[in-house]
Amino acid sequence: MSSGEKKRVIILGSTGSIGRMTLEVISKLSDQFEVVGLAAGSNASLLLDQAVQFKPKLVSLYREEIGSAFSPEFSHLGVKFLTGPEAATRLVEELEADIVVAAITGIESLKPTLTALRRAKRVALANKEALVVAGSLIMEEARRRAIEIIPVDSEHSGVFQCLRQEEKENVARVILTASGGPFFRTPLDELASKTVEEALAHPRWKMGKKITIDSATLMNKGLELIEARWLFDLKPQQLAILIHPQSIIHSLVELIDGSFLAQLSITDMRLPIQFALCYPKRGERLLPPLNLGEVRKLEFFEVEEKRFPLIRLAWEALEKGGSLPVALNAANEVAVNAFIEGKISFPEIAEIVKAVIEAHLFRPVKNLEEIMAVDRESREKAEKLINLRQ
Amino acid sequence: MSSGEKKRVIILGSTGSIGRMTLEVISKLSDQFEVVGLAAGSNASLLLDQAVQFKPKLVSLYREEIGSAFSPEFSHLGVKFLTGPEAATRLVEELEADIVVAAITGIESLKPTLTALRRAKRVALANKEALVVAGSLIMEEARRRAIEIIPVDSEHSGVFQCLRQEEKENVARVILTASGGPFFRTPLDELASKTVEEALAHPRWKMGKKITIDSATLMNKGLELIEARWLFDLKPQQLAILIHPQSIIHSLVELIDGSFLAQLSITDMRLPIQFALCYPKRGERLLPPLNLGEVRKLEFFEVEEKRFPLIRLAWEALEKGGSLPVALNAANEVAVNAFIEGKISFPEIAEIVKAVIEAHLFRPVKNLEEIMAVDRESREKAEKLINLRQ
Repeated sequence: MSSGEKKRVIILGSTGSIGRMTLEVISKLSDQFEVVGLAAGSNASLLLDQAVQFKPKLVSLYREEIGSAFSPEFSHLGVKFLTGPEAATRLVEELEADIVVAAITGIESLKPTLTALRRAKRVALANKEALVVAGSLIMEEARRRAIEIIPVDSEHSGVFQCLRQEEKENVARVILTASGGPFFRTPLDELASKTVEEALAHPRWKMGKKITIDSATLMNKGLELIEARWLFDLKPQQLAILIHPQSIIHSLVELIDGSFLAQLSITDMRLPIQFALCYPKRGERLLPPLNLGEVRKLEFFEVEEKRFPLIRLAWEALEKGGSLPVALNAANEVAVNAFIEGKISFPEIAEIVKAVIEAHLFRPVKNLEEIMAVDRESREKAEKLINLRQ
Repeated sequence: MSSGEKKRVIILGSTGSIGRMTLEVISKLSDQFEVVGLAAGSNASLLLDQAVQFKPKLVSLYREEIGSAFSPEFSHLGVKFLTGPEAATRLVEELEADIVVAAITGIESLKPTLTALRRAKRVALANKEALVVAGSLIMEEARRRAIEIIPVDSEHSGVFQCLRQEEKENVARVILTASGGPFFRTPLDELASKTVEEALAHPRWKMGKKITIDSATLMNKGLELIEARWLFDLKPQQLAILIHPQSIIHSLVELIDGSFLAQLSITDMRLPIQFALCYPKRGERLLPPLNLGEVRKLEFFEVEEKRFPLIRLAWEALEKGGSLPVALNAANEVAVNAFIEGKISFPEIAEIVKAVIEAHLFRPVKNLEEIMAVDRESREKAEKLINLRQ
């Protein structure tokens, strides 16, 4: 394949877990993809290394105060360098790209993701928050501009792969599997003493800190329910969660006749990343094969709601919509950070989120401004509640 | 749906296990399907009951000597009745049909199945022997006439459902699962004393006698490998077997990028039957749902070849082709019947088949006559060997 036929890729969140794995996949498929832009948050030195290796046209850093020290280095490399909270969005606006990998964690991803939907041909969507807080806006934008959104979350990639040829009317339910995280079998009365290190020791997936804690509380699956609702245009009652500690089956689609399709693979995010980049083709296998004869056993358990109280709140947010998912996501992000910083205990994550939701004034949200207002208000409320406990 | 839009169905082997279940499915979907013809082997009284219930135009019975006594009853019903070894083929020739369900066990199915491929729009293929002994002829006939062959075997239906989603070039391997049958965990030295009743006590599937014994020896899976090779146009090295005692995952498709798709359902043949009838649509669910939270555990084991010696012979027949699958199928059918009749022990089934294959003179087979000649010769050889042991 000649250089002119290579797909041009922008990675938003290039120094995070998904961003780094995306670059690793691209480095193995460099005959098919070229990196044109990289947007990072605060890890300027890794961004510089990535720029040296992948020679993008443009890079950006969210944290201006860190970026200024690195400016001469990027300039020396001949790579244009933007900094500040708007830098990722400007990067997407300035570049021509075929694929934008949207892998910024948190609500900060929303504006650059919406911009990508106006500029690129395909968005490989890895950050769940964008769909959770603004699913309606995002899907509407994608439909209007006929942009492909290819999910990168392993569960949604699995659903996407199962649904490729099935008529939508044939789909009865979509079941997302959850590993159950590190505390799936922990006696309930021991949860209060669990440390950050224990919560970060995820049994299956190597991921960023925020999402690993969200796996331990099952909130990650709650957010994925909301994400799936928008990605696949499903009703809340068409969604379900099943605990599957081996994380080999990523999701199942139940069809109206009682047959199920499932997608399986080893637990490695590089697989759904590669799928999202190569779709509708499939690339060659870059990782060790799945050997079910060695795995031996796949287990499934219903979700215990008293172990995972956040999941009930997620179902409520999924059903009610409007400002509720925004408040849920914001409160959870603040509470998880407080836990990581040692300010609250593990069970307090759910308590804080619950208190924010109970005090929340429900309303519809129609645009980015309204979403951001609910987000700010819920974060402030969560922070206040956390400070009261200290 | 008005009566004029109903799909006209012929069932070959209507009094067998698959035939009866097909009629049960059709009785629940009588707004979509009508039965125009039924062909049975020897169970004239059940055929009569079926004719009373479904009012076909034409029915047939293989065993002429049994049929003659029933002739007045069918005539009284106003249903045309054919008897004799050619009756099923003549039934297919005389009727106009949209779907022929080919569910006659054994090589007797070959001629009516080939006739169905010249006459119907779709063949729902339930008997494996036709593809095992004449895969090349059958697939060539289907291609030439652009006939859809929809597999009814649960494993192949699963593969068919998974492959709908994928380009053929993306398929690395197809893995058929096997329950392992009733003797999967039996100590090897106890196999010789296993009775017919024990061999017929299949842990998962309710099926006919022949196929249940074939499940206990794993020959059923061997025949299915050959079947899959033809149905999906695969190379022998693209096929694999995995023991899966729960029989919930019916088959898996491994794609070139390392991702797997799988089809799952409760173990009930009415599901793949319904799929084959309704395809490309899916009908409503007629059976209890699959609940993985209740199933709890899916296990997988590699095949132990010394426990299942017939599987090595099946791989050999798959790789070499020509007359070998015909000889294998014929010798196995005779040996299984001898076991059912109490003439030989369970391990002797494999011994007889092995002896026939070792003495077999390999040659290509080009047509029905050559196939039938190899079949006769191999049966005679197997019968001789069985008589020598008594």
